[in-house]
Amino acid sequence: MNSKSGLKVCVIGLGSMGFGVATSLLRDGFDIVGFDVSADAMARFSALGGKTADSPSAAARDADVAICLVVNAAQTETVLYGAGGTAAAMATGGTILSCATMSPGAARDFAVRAEALGLNYVDAPVSGGATRAASGELTIMASGAPAAIAHARPVLDCIAAKVYELGEKAGTGAAFKIVNQLLAGVHIAAACEAITFAKAMDLDIARVYEVITASAGSSWMFENRVPHILDGDYAPRSAVDIFTKDLGIVADIGREMKFPTPIASMALQMFVMTAAAGMGRDDDASVARMIADMAGLQLPGMEG
Amino acid sequence: MNSKSGLKVCVIGLGSMGFGVATSLLRDGFDIVGFDVSADAMARFSALGGKTADSPSAAARDADVAICLVVNAAQTETVLYGAGGTAAAMATGGTILSCATMSPGAARDFAVRAEALGLNYVDAPVSGGATRAASGELTIMASGAPAAIAHARPVLDCIAAKVYELGEKAGTGAAFKIVNQLLAGVHIAAACEAITFAKAMDLDIARVYEVITASAGSSWMFENRVPHILDGDYAPRSAVDIFTKDLGIVADIGREMKFPTPIASMALQMFVMTAAAGMGRDDDASVARMIADMAGLQLPGMEG
Repeated sequence: MNSKSGLKVCVIGLGSMGFGVATSLLRDGFDIVGFDVSADAMARFSALGGKTADSPSAAARDADVAICLVVNAAQTETVLYGAGGTAAAMATGGTILSCATMSPGAARDFAVRAEALGLNYVDAPVSGGATRAASGELTIMASGAPAAIAHARPVLDCIAAKVYELGEKAGTGAAFKIVNQLLAGVHIAAACEAITFAKAMDLDIARVYEVITASAGSSWMFENRVPHILDGDYAPRSAVDIFTKDLGIVADIGREMKFPTPIASMALQMFVMTAAAGMGRDDDASVARMIADMAGLQLPGMEG
Repeated sequence: MNSKSGLKVCVIGLGSMGFGVATSLLRDGFDIVGFDVSADAMARFSALGGKTADSPSAAARDADVAICLVVNAAQTETVLYGAGGTAAAMATGGTILSCATMSPGAARDFAVRAEALGLNYVDAPVSGGATRAASGELTIMASGAPAAIAHARPVLDCIAAKVYELGEKAGTGAAFKIVNQLLAGVHIAAACEAITFAKAMDLDIARVYEVITASAGSSWMFENRVPHILDGDYAPRSAVDIFTKDLGIVADIGREMKFPTPIASMALQMFVMTAAAGMGRDDDASVARMIADMAGLQLPGMEG
């Protein structure tokens, strides 16, 4: 069964982002195969009528476009170039959309290896969260050869509301994404510090949320994450460990370039402290619980 | 000449915020007298038809409402309670609107002293910047006795688009404001760190601005301050020294409460470093210049 575009597509990684991307493609009639290491994720995709495969290479058999939506550079390397990987199974001239957040250097390395196999590589980190992945409204920070982006265009248009074309070289998209993650991570840590500081001063934190979101102290992350704290709901929409990873990439790049990142490094430590306290897989707003625990404060949902 | 409200009003402090407040009141026909230590500021107000006086006490003679828009708690104490101060000259039952950013403890102390003189005290920090001060569209984070806020209501409605009534005690408004300043200061420092990090990775920083403001890494301050960096324009809309002061208040409160503020403290150090490098009176986006200087990068408007 071919789609309107005639492109065979595979999605490697059916986590919170990949699942939404795969279902968006399915909904739009693409010829799509999904793979995940989790049998549960594969069963959920099958239940919606999606095809699955037993390995990245089986999913990618003769695929024109392979979307790689795993967690980091190491997992990307494994599913693309490891044993049973995607790259060797794809159709000649196929295009890899590599969506994990990683260093620009890793993206450049993966692009060189794709080209050596006769494949196109688009450095294509995504932003927008699981909700917008599910609705096909991601933001994509893409860089790569214009012909490669054109080849994948029907897929990009299906899964994204906005595709920024940021340059012809792999690594540029990754660099834009990591700048975004620097800010996002700092803003989450700052939101958690500020709301617990407000609690320590005995303010009504729901009122603080109302006032700050209408004031110059607001941020996208303050608006988005503080409701989790007000509700005492730390079910992971995005986990603490995502930011120990992404701010870790910032720290690695900064050290390598000899560029100081004091604010991002302090925010990284806040996520590391929260993970160390056992909350690494909980929602990243858990930084507020870590601070509250330390300071003897009780936020909503915390036992006395 | 009485205004439609019949209230006699004085504005102490005709800086970037106070000047806008005073001209808003003048425009709306209030009986208004202004005072500033700067003869230039007084001459500018006179040129618009505003009355001025030689001292805070002369400006406040029989005033019903005194608006105190100086820089900090120390200046507020001087103009309210020092020799030639405002409080002793006001009409009995008059209301002080105290707008400087200060610690909740300082606000509570000033309120006690006002009450001892038979005056009302409204803890009324403002947000919104000089542009919204001039258009009478400030946000005010008010706390104080409801009768006091009611007494000053015609004045508040003239100068503010939004008045949050946050509680009956002085100190609550101050606490809300300082939470806002914690976030605002961190977000400025993070914006400066992120945009110079992007420059160090050789990205097109105008494009970074475009992408980030449409992404989850955005903040009110990123949107507002990064254009100063792109334009190389460091004329002070709000100076570095404002945030060495306001994040200093956060640090003082945190130390006093034994509450940790690692992110805010690191941001404070970035402003202190920028002031130490001679840019304390320049626009607070100068944190980016400080980082660029350190890292050997050239932002717009910086000589090689």
